Amino acid sequence: MIKPRTPPGVMELLPRDQIAFQRMLDTIRRNFERFGFLPVETPVMELTEVLLTKSGGETERQVYFVESTGSRANAQSGDGRAVPELALRFDLTVPLARYVAEHEAELAFPFRRYQMQRVYRGERQQRGRYREFYQCDIDVIGKDSLSVRYDAELPACIYAVFSELDIGAFTIELNNRKLLRGFFESQGVADGELQALVLREVDKVGKRGVDYVRDVLIGSSFGLPSEAVDKILDFIGVRSDSHEDALAKLAALGEGNESLNQGVAELREVLELIRALGVPESNYALNFSIARGLDYYTGTVYETTLNDYPQLGSICSGGRYEDLASHYTKSKLPGVGISIGLTRLFWQLQEAKLVSTADSSVQVLITQMDDAHLPQCLALASELRAAGLNTEVVMEASKLGKQFKYADRAGIRFVVVLGENEIAKGTATVKDLRREDQFEVACSELARTLRVELEQSRVMK
Amino acid sequence: MIKPRTPPGVMELLPRDQIAFQRMLDTIRRNFERFGFLPVETPVMELTEVLLTKSGGETERQVYFVESTGSRANAQSGDGRAVPELALRFDLTVPLARYVAEHEAELAFPFRRYQMQRVYRGERQQRGRYREFYQCDIDVIGKDSLSVRYDAELPACIYAVFSELDIGAFTIELNNRKLLRGFFESQGVADGELQALVLREVDKVGKRGVDYVRDVLIGSSFGLPSEAVDKILDFIGVRSDSHEDALAKLAALGEGNESLNQGVAELREVLELIRALGVPESNYALNFSIARGLDYYTGTVYETTLNDYPQLGSICSGGRYEDLASHYTKSKLPGVGISIGLTRLFWQLQEAKLVSTADSSVQVLITQMDDAHLPQCLALASELRAAGLNTEVVMEASKLGKQFKYADRAGIRFVVVLGENEIAKGTATVKDLRREDQFEVACSELARTLRVELEQSRVMK
Repeated sequence: MIKPRTPPGVMELLPRDQIAFQRMLDTIRRNFERFGFLPVETPVMELTEVLLTKSGGETERQVYFVESTGSRANAQSGDGRAVPELALRFDLTVPLARYVAEHEAELAFPFRRYQMQRVYRGERQQRGRYREFYQCDIDVIGKDSLSVRYDAELPACIYAVFSELDIGAFTIELNNRKLLRGFFESQGVADGELQALVLREVDKVGKRGVDYVRDVLIGSSFGLPSEAVDKILDFIGVRSDSHEDALAKLAALGEGNESLNQGVAELREVLELIRALGVPESNYALNFSIARGLDYYTGTVYETTLNDYPQLGSICSGGRYEDLASHYTKSKLPGVGISIGLTRLFWQLQEAKLVSTADSSVQVLITQMDDAHLPQCLALASELRAAGLNTEVVMEASKLGKQFKYADRAGIRFVVVLGENEIAKGTATVKDLRREDQFEVACSELARTLRVELEQSRVMK
Repeated sequence: MIKPRTPPGVMELLPRDQIAFQRMLDTIRRNFERFGFLPVETPVMELTEVLLTKSGGETERQVYFVESTGSRANAQSGDGRAVPELALRFDLTVPLARYVAEHEAELAFPFRRYQMQRVYRGERQQRGRYREFYQCDIDVIGKDSLSVRYDAELPACIYAVFSELDIGAFTIELNNRKLLRGFFESQGVADGELQALVLREVDKVGKRGVDYVRDVLIGSSFGLPSEAVDKILDFIGVRSDSHEDALAKLAALGEGNESLNQGVAELREVLELIRALGVPESNYALNFSIARGLDYYTGTVYETTLNDYPQLGSICSGGRYEDLASHYTKSKLPGVGISIGLTRLFWQLQEAKLVSTADSSVQVLITQMDDAHLPQCLALASELRAAGLNTEVVMEASKLGKQFKYADRAGIRFVVVLGENEIAKGTATVKDLRREDQFEVACSELARTLRVELEQSRVMK
């Protein structure tokens, strides 16, 4: 006998939680499609040679390699070791790059795709960290160039997603890497790597406090003038609290170097279009401290936080990149993308009690008191199913109380009783477990009646 | 520069085919839920020790093992070799067994679950054979016992699925392993292994002809009496062509040994309930030649064929099993299940031209002639999206002809033009590329008008 168990670091849900998770996936997909993104799915296994073009280091240490008994190692890792030919994707961006480069001639640009699949990382074992997790990504890929206007569509889509997910107030925060770079240059921090190091320190303000970070930046390892450090700390503290305030804070930066001016112009255009797309101004803001992956993003960058749960960190992030697929094609493919890590988010929402166990996907349970009535029950079930109601039939007679208890525990709303009396009259008795209500209705009217009840609850919600 | 490509044996689709595939997945899921099955997802990686309990041999040779740079081999294969600790699932049945055994105390029985995920097999490379493919499974698992009545629900659900998938006439064929076993015993073939060998030969009737099979069974390797062989060949040739015919063919078997009688009784009950569930009699039939995995199934067995494409073989198969999870729990968990191998089916349907490239998931394209109108276009897009229409906006002005050509190629039905005149009048010009029709409508009426058009096409279809 072997103990049934999953490997560490994976999320597996009981049905009612899986239903809640599936509804989130459905909501995300529906809104991605609403904004004109097209579905893509890629294989979970990629050729190692294709997957690990630029990596080495941390990424490669976390990659899962795949091998069947028949196959042999025949690819090379970054440091020249032989590694298996296949590996599991660790994000959806590298597969997107491969996909777009491979199918370039067959795609229309700008190419707007969404992808919602699982990715794999051999993370250190830790609560709330997953080795298998869903990413839900949207990206717009241009050929040769891509207007900054697309940078406004992604937050609008994300606004629609999180509004419908109904997990509380949230803010999509924006910054721009050109603005950051231009500002740092103006403070004498011109070198890109040095900027990255400074930003890494600056990132610690939340945890270690402003004074700690100021000391480090002034101290011997950085040696920045204290005046510059103060300006940097002021700058990265900027947040806007309304659309006008955001525009005012951009204006307040004044004329600067080319990079700064360009960043300001881009942010301004993106803000205006986000507004034109109908996103309420309470749901977006400037945050000059956002940097994201510094070697990758080149323009707009996004993070999204739940207003009442800042400790959860960013629940949806992304940005603008210069060239998606330079390892696979000579075409220049600039893009902008944003990603929701749904498995971790779901875990966080459960921990914060922001998502609850869902009702069953089953809407109606037809009970069974006498096996002789089974054919009538099955015929009624067929009618309900044809009318779009998810219906389960108890196939073997048992005590009614037990069947009601099952429906209650399972989160099934309507319990239908079709007894001798009801069959004689052509009716059904319905108990609405949510409204704790009971009524009798003609079988021919049952489907319509239940649909009306469900529709009313949906609207009232 | 690395050539962008996928590994052999995986299916990757361009967006319009992916949309067609996704619609099939949606239809399957909707009908699975309609019949009261609950969603389950399991991790793609299982512990090798848990996954490979009983296998060895063919299964194990096809298993993909998974290893990250950090991890080390620490499980044992069937023949005692050290193998990696993790492996990819090769079906959804072993993960179901593990899931049910692991969560036994938290599940309600009979447990009805559906699962639609990808599985992995290191198959020999061959056209139409996939190493990564979707399985869409439904199973009902009982505790201690499970009424044969559930065996009728699965074909009813599969009938609903294939009707809505709209891929032509199909027949769900049924047989019963007890009936098969009883019949073989009555012909002097009592030994289970011998029955399996005879059935394997009998399976070749389609390809090699009756005479070839008769010669083998009479010949020295089997040495069966020619009278018994003739009866076996007659028996396995039985098909029914209506509900009454099926009942008559069962009755014609007469009284026999216990196993045969039980098989007949079970098939009769299943047939009656399939009818009670409203499945048309042209969509189900007896087929006494169906055996399926002989060491696994113990009662009802199913196959499904497209009437006009018998060469595709069974597109959906399954059956009743005695004990799902004997490797993981002492509880007896009998069940019945059926599975659609969607990746292969999709490929077959494409090859047979039974599935066509879908229209875009984008329903409306808002064109752009003058960048100054972008805010109006975005506001209109927001209205359409709020009304549930999947809407794409061209973000940079270009020639209108180019934008129409794009919509046409992408399979987008409605193209909206919002020019100077229209904006002055508060209208939009709409071109319906499917009906090759053009009309002007007030912007405030646009969403409603397009929804009506889409609803009408849906109903007319």
